Amino acid sequence: MTEIIDVKSIAQRVREDLKVRVAVLRDRGKGIPTLATILVGNDPGSEYYMASQKKACDSIGAEMLKLVLPEDTSEEELLRTIRDLNDDGSVHGIMVLLPLPKGISEGKVAMAIDPSKDVDGVNPVNIGLVASTSGGVAPCTPESVLEILKASLKELKGLHAVIVGRSNIVGKPIIQLLLREHMTVTVCHSRTSDLKEVTRSGDVVVAAVGKPLMVDDTYIREGACVIDVGTSEFEGRITGDVDLEKIMGKASMATKVPGGVGMLTTVLLMRNLVECAEKVL
Amino acid sequence: MTEIIDVKSIAQRVREDLKVRVAVLRDRGKGIPTLATILVGNDPGSEYYMASQKKACDSIGAEMLKLVLPEDTSEEELLRTIRDLNDDGSVHGIMVLLPLPKGISEGKVAMAIDPSKDVDGVNPVNIGLVASTSGGVAPCTPESVLEILKASLKELKGLHAVIVGRSNIVGKPIIQLLLREHMTVTVCHSRTSDLKEVTRSGDVVVAAVGKPLMVDDTYIREGACVIDVGTSEFEGRITGDVDLEKIMGKASMATKVPGGVGMLTTVLLMRNLVECAEKVL
Repeated sequence: MTEIIDVKSIAQRVREDLKVRVAVLRDRGKGIPTLATILVGNDPGSEYYMASQKKACDSIGAEMLKLVLPEDTSEEELLRTIRDLNDDGSVHGIMVLLPLPKGISEGKVAMAIDPSKDVDGVNPVNIGLVASTSGGVAPCTPESVLEILKASLKELKGLHAVIVGRSNIVGKPIIQLLLREHMTVTVCHSRTSDLKEVTRSGDVVVAAVGKPLMVDDTYIREGACVIDVGTSEFEGRITGDVDLEKIMGKASMATKVPGGVGMLTTVLLMRNLVECAEKVL
Repeated sequence: MTEIIDVKSIAQRVREDLKVRVAVLRDRGKGIPTLATILVGNDPGSEYYMASQKKACDSIGAEMLKLVLPEDTSEEELLRTIRDLNDDGSVHGIMVLLPLPKGISEGKVAMAIDPSKDVDGVNPVNIGLVASTSGGVAPCTPESVLEILKASLKELKGLHAVIVGRSNIVGKPIIQLLLREHMTVTVCHSRTSDLKEVTRSGDVVVAAVGKPLMVDDTYIREGACVIDVGTSEFEGRITGDVDLEKIMGKASMATKVPGGVGMLTTVLLMRNLVECAEKVL
């Protein structure tokens, strides 16, 4: 039987721990971890994400500043807003929601966020620190994958993880996080020859391509642990990269979509926030 | 037959190109690319490396400043020296030779070098840019591996490269450079279960572990291209990670040690220097 990994419980455990840590900071009079989230324009996805961040902040006792800037904000204005937040000692985490309006460089925005407040790990300094040290702030989706694997498998060391997809915000940071755990890591993608042969060599398969239902039983070996990072709209539903029905019985365990990796990302954003706050409070 | 890759010729081609580029900058009165290399103390390996950098600068018409600081230099003094070089418009590249005396943090030194002068790609900003964009400055040894593969194989796209070793200065940056070329990439290491099975899945095997003669014919598939990044002293000789005699006839091509990857690294340091200079001159 394939076990569906209970990500909700993992999220709950992390949340309970964060509640305590925030309470400690508050009760000792050190201050309250505060996230500043910037939305430029009115992308509905970003508005939804902002609302869920607010809920997550509330759930652990953290504060949130919502900064909504008009669609026609210039790059310079946005960068100035970020610099002001960098200098503001009462703000511990800064997040800029994507996509940004045309004409604003995501790269420049990422570079502008103070690395010590960069709760989503987008500044190249954090990408570099994650890739070359045990420090740095990693983005939340890759962290979710790691957290799920740690909670689900006895030992990661020596296991072979095959990551399908090499995006900057998911696939590539996962490489680094899993190498830190002493896993053997393979990254494959659309150009990979004989993709199924490669994915079948994985004890763990992480699907992060954004192709609905692509990974079926022909992609995995018997007993593999399958983590589905994909979320696409497909036939009117939110659908992952994994065809869960087809891998049932062959995989040892798997996450579902929705109700999988996505359950954890906002909680781990909160953990990054609390860690950034703890370093300065 | 196994072809021994003629790295010397590859280095020669890069060197000729750089000579022309330096001459163009000089003849147009823009300036001469200048490398500042800092040696703290008197590590014999570093002294040798400094001398070979001087030779490399001479060979392409670039300038070099040798800064030799005493063994008892404090971290703050070294950081101040780096900051002065950052501010010096006549210096285009800065390199600090390792190892540093005890008490000086390599991490802080790497962070102090202006990313736009960081010719060995050690600043986390460059590590992050290499990991997440097509820009950034990559360290020279990983660049050498890529350059050799590009010169030796018709097409890299879709091939499976297996990297043995996950060090910050070699194994990990190679992942990023090879992913950019659309290769499938596996990283394995001392904790990998069934290492030989993994390495035998590689069209390309990059050995970067520092274990003399470890990789023999049992580690590779018929026709693999084998790049040896190891350099260890073993039985009085400089020895690579690959037992070249044993893989002869099984690999399609291979580099030797000495006379392989190492032939190219200093030339590629020069290329990074010229590229940094071209951006500002």
